[in-house]
Amino acid sequence: MLCFSKMVEPATDTHAATKVVPLLKDELDIVIPTIRNLDFLEMWRPFFQPYHLIIVQDGDPSKTITVPDGFDYELYNRNDINRILGPKASCISFKDSACRCFGYMVSKKKYIFTIDDDCFVAKDPSGKPINALEQHIKNLLSPSTPFFFNTLYDPYREGADFVRGYPFSLREGVHTAVSHGLWLNIPDYDAPTQLVKPLERNTRYVDAVLTIPKGTLFPMCGMNLAFDRELIGPAMYFGLMGDGQPIGRYDDMWAGWCTKVICDHLGLGIKTGLPYIYHSKASNPFVNLRKEYKGIFWQEEIIPFFQAATLPKDCTTVQKCYIELSKQVKEKLSKVDPYFDKLADAMVTWIEAWDELNPSGASA
Amino acid sequence: MLCFSKMVEPATDTHAATKVVPLLKDELDIVIPTIRNLDFLEMWRPFFQPYHLIIVQDGDPSKTITVPDGFDYELYNRNDINRILGPKASCISFKDSACRCFGYMVSKKKYIFTIDDDCFVAKDPSGKPINALEQHIKNLLSPSTPFFFNTLYDPYREGADFVRGYPFSLREGVHTAVSHGLWLNIPDYDAPTQLVKPLERNTRYVDAVLTIPKGTLFPMCGMNLAFDRELIGPAMYFGLMGDGQPIGRYDDMWAGWCTKVICDHLGLGIKTGLPYIYHSKASNPFVNLRKEYKGIFWQEEIIPFFQAATLPKDCTTVQKCYIELSKQVKEKLSKVDPYFDKLADAMVTWIEAWDELNPSGASA
Repeated sequence: MLCFSKMVEPATDTHAATKVVPLLKDELDIVIPTIRNLDFLEMWRPFFQPYHLIIVQDGDPSKTITVPDGFDYELYNRNDINRILGPKASCISFKDSACRCFGYMVSKKKYIFTIDDDCFVAKDPSGKPINALEQHIKNLLSPSTPFFFNTLYDPYREGADFVRGYPFSLREGVHTAVSHGLWLNIPDYDAPTQLVKPLERNTRYVDAVLTIPKGTLFPMCGMNLAFDRELIGPAMYFGLMGDGQPIGRYDDMWAGWCTKVICDHLGLGIKTGLPYIYHSKASNPFVNLRKEYKGIFWQEEIIPFFQAATLPKDCTTVQKCYIELSKQVKEKLSKVDPYFDKLADAMVTWIEAWDELNPSGASA
Repeated sequence: MLCFSKMVEPATDTHAATKVVPLLKDELDIVIPTIRNLDFLEMWRPFFQPYHLIIVQDGDPSKTITVPDGFDYELYNRNDINRILGPKASCISFKDSACRCFGYMVSKKKYIFTIDDDCFVAKDPSGKPINALEQHIKNLLSPSTPFFFNTLYDPYREGADFVRGYPFSLREGVHTAVSHGLWLNIPDYDAPTQLVKPLERNTRYVDAVLTIPKGTLFPMCGMNLAFDRELIGPAMYFGLMGDGQPIGRYDDMWAGWCTKVICDHLGLGIKTGLPYIYHSKASNPFVNLRKEYKGIFWQEEIIPFFQAATLPKDCTTVQKCYIELSKQVKEKLSKVDPYFDKLADAMVTWIEAWDELNPSGASA
């Protein structure tokens, strides 16, 4: 789509953006996993500054991460994680952005927005900087429609509605648990696709938000993601990746599969589409291939497993659903690789740690 | 989306459009149901003129319908339908655009595009007239992905691909049987929504094509629709509507429900999204309400019926699937209203008539 070619530049004038009304200011934390100074926040300042940040420092804990002045944040490094979780810290990945899920656990807010530190402010086709967080909040605060497809996309957006033939009994929708945003410039491709199409850039701005239908799995990317912690938080475990593990770059995928199965079971919705961020830098495809290659063949068995997974009726909380899923993982995926046995145990540890840090919503 | 406000005007300069390469010129018929002179074809001339038109004249057969010079067409009125189908003509609706499905039956081509005569050429956000037919053909000739959701929409479009986490075993996709296009300006709303939002216009150009996932039903609109007759033609029956029937405006919905269930069973795909046409005139909501009101409550039972419908493995052709569905309709929907008993019979008659006119692909 050449007509939108201007979009492939990131916005540079976000400071001049019109005054932002910070929605849910005291009910949302922004979680950022990082190994470097957070200069990228300068660009996001007009949109993020009113919010509290939870920074999860990955890698060497002795390194100092600089955060631009004026941001309200707490920062956790590996020493902090070990201190807070004790032996349960084993469920939090090291040397992998999967460590971000520790931030979900220590947050005390209802909503989480998580973003990678190589994601900048994108521009919409009119050239206006996109307030990604505001769009995520809109997505989360309006219902989802997982039971029937609406051809004009999100029926709750201004200027849209349910089309002829949409059952009236389904027009109230269900609570939205997850808002999955997309990426202009560098698309979220796997290593083989990166290798084959090194120059491909996403320049297509698709002005849509839609509910992923019930029963359909999707590849959830953790780069630009928001969710309702109270509704689905304990399912947002990013697994065991990175240091000492046989696999990487499947952290968000794992969370997405588990989350979708649990949302379907509990009658919650997941939206995808807007907002876009500008993804600045392609990661190294050779490094990615090394991290991914087991996942590439494992997913051929994992996905049918999740497609077939059903949860019993007495799984009425996210925690119960998640523990049940961990049992099914142990039972059915351990034969794929012993890694899944370890992962199933970590899933249980994750829930125990979650409940310890969040006693009011604990499963017990 | 005010930035696209220019789009709500139809294109006026389609004659100046760049030279069109007519894809599938000898393999596609354009089916148009009408009660009036087809002046609207003037605007479509650069895009439609290379193709053969099948015009199904509804209402008074003694009225003469004028077709602009230079179009290659055949025209059928009610007398023709009665003569060709004999007693089986009872399955073709009268005084309702559902009669269009007669055109699908008499066509000898592999592909059908059907469009209403109040649909004009829309413009894309750059102001370029949209060749709707060309986009439908692109949709039909590229595969669908009903088994897993791709967050960057149609992975086969230029500039797009499968994202990280999409199983490689599913990347070949399946054959696309249906391409469902959308509408700028007047959205396809039911009568209650029309009454509540008389001034709502669709101005949002969503630059996406996507596969409707397996197991998910959608409201299929017949206004701007293309399909592969060889793959799915016999399922495209628009039911009993209009004259002598208790219901109208559910013809395309009925076809959509049946088609989706059969596509899911046979492993075929349905795409929705682009292309847009410009829908010029809202139909009268009071008249629509009279036609629709039974459908509005019937659909609350019909949709769960179709959501639960399964077809046995030995249903290996569209005809066999359709006859099986007709049995299930008779068995399970007749209790909703005796109309469904009649409709189930008409479904059988439709298949008999289809096979009579299309002996090479007959089910027997």
